[in-house]
Amino acid sequence: MVERLTLAYDGRRYAGWQRQTNALAVQQVVEEALAALFERSVRVHGAGRTDAGVHARGQVAHFAPPDRLPPKALVHATNHRLPSDIRVMAASRMPDGFHARKSAVGKLYSYRLYRGRVVPPTAAPWVMGVRRSLDLDRIRRAMTALPGRHDFAAFALAGGSHSRSERRIFAASVDGLSGPDSRQVELRFWGEGFLRGMVRSLVGTLIEIGLGERPVGDMSRLLRPGHDRSEAGPTAEARGLCLERVFYPPEADPLEAYEA
Amino acid sequence: MVERLTLAYDGRRYAGWQRQTNALAVQQVVEEALAALFERSVRVHGAGRTDAGVHARGQVAHFAPPDRLPPKALVHATNHRLPSDIRVMAASRMPDGFHARKSAVGKLYSYRLYRGRVVPPTAAPWVMGVRRSLDLDRIRRAMTALPGRHDFAAFALAGGSHSRSERRIFAASVDGLSGPDSRQVELRFWGEGFLRGMVRSLVGTLIEIGLGERPVGDMSRLLRPGHDRSEAGPTAEARGLCLERVFYPPEADPLEAYEA
Repeated sequence: MVERLTLAYDGRRYAGWQRQTNALAVQQVVEEALAALFERSVRVHGAGRTDAGVHARGQVAHFAPPDRLPPKALVHATNHRLPSDIRVMAASRMPDGFHARKSAVGKLYSYRLYRGRVVPPTAAPWVMGVRRSLDLDRIRRAMTALPGRHDFAAFALAGGSHSRSERRIFAASVDGLSGPDSRQVELRFWGEGFLRGMVRSLVGTLIEIGLGERPVGDMSRLLRPGHDRSEAGPTAEARGLCLERVFYPPEADPLEAYEA
Repeated sequence: MVERLTLAYDGRRYAGWQRQTNALAVQQVVEEALAALFERSVRVHGAGRTDAGVHARGQVAHFAPPDRLPPKALVHATNHRLPSDIRVMAASRMPDGFHARKSAVGKLYSYRLYRGRVVPPTAAPWVMGVRRSLDLDRIRRAMTALPGRHDFAAFALAGGSHSRSERRIFAASVDGLSGPDSRQVELRFWGEGFLRGMVRSLVGTLIEIGLGERPVGDMSRLLRPGHDRSEAGPTAEARGLCLERVFYPPEADPLEAYEA
């Protein structure tokens, strides 16, 4: 039996999800909160690394609980021991064999842009500011190249071999938010898995396309084999990226669950 | 000739807009940035006080400039001297006689709620968390009582005389946000002017109505003369409130303007 946690965090203070020797990571802070709660050391396994400064609304982690606690008590007692920039949003008791990373079948990332170079401070921690001339229609047309299995070597941090840089994207979208946040734009990337830095370099390239600095056809061109990172656009800022959700197959249904 | 600035700020670090002797206010920080820019002391006049912790996306202020600067240069040079939680979003050169507070004919405030008691850290600085059972339809029905001229004594901090607590509301609305922020709810209040603490006590009362702790008809009842602050709901948290916009009549059109 394992416990599964759904975690949301403001990534600004953290060197990413994964425990580091010389910088504070979200994993370490969660492990310390659980250790304080159970009075035993606890090792937590996350569904995905998020890089330094990247946010999450739906990171998933699992751990083997030293003691049984009902999911509701686990959520609130852990939050009580966490700093306010990390929250447990939900907890589920999972069947044996559930693994936050290995059982995952997909992930959804969002990236928020703000159309305007001066970003209001109430949006600044979660968006990257771009020139107002950004053309969403150009970005949308470029993104039609994304669904399917492609070699993302041009969007990966290190130039790995061909097969190791292949990934499947299920869907991708771009939408201007409506109502009060209408200067914000949200790009979403739903895929089986992502290379390190992949979403941010896709976004950096799409911004150049949206600003007319790069042809719309560059996205499909760079997804054909034989390209490397130097040909794509810059890595977009960490602050705009958020791990929204991790997907699991139906056989990973919880035995007991609580959502705050 | 006066300069008009449109300001956005994250109110968390500040004791509100208005300069204080023993706490840091937004007005002081803006005045210091302008003094550094013009190398002369500058007095800034805001359209409205915002209370400690309250945010703004469209506060307006005016000042008499010691020197002429084109609006675009004024925006960027001032931002260069401001901390990142205060931004000048726009600047306009206005005809003589323009006064940020006295010329204003209306203000729009928003208040954001999050349906769920555990608020994700990416939303927490700008929303107040409430139980998920919040019924927007009950709130909407109660808010139909708001438009018009009423005695808001039941929603004012100090119990002033009847005429001094009358204010005109032009419109009020409540909407669940769509898309990625669908757990958020935004209430908007557009009025000629507001008493101190008025929006937050209206929201505190509307939350009680939305949670079924108070009848829908309480809003119209409390807007009839003869009620006091003790009869309305609690003051909602500062973090959810934002001064969105200040309205001016057409004769206050700028001579020259720049929006970032």
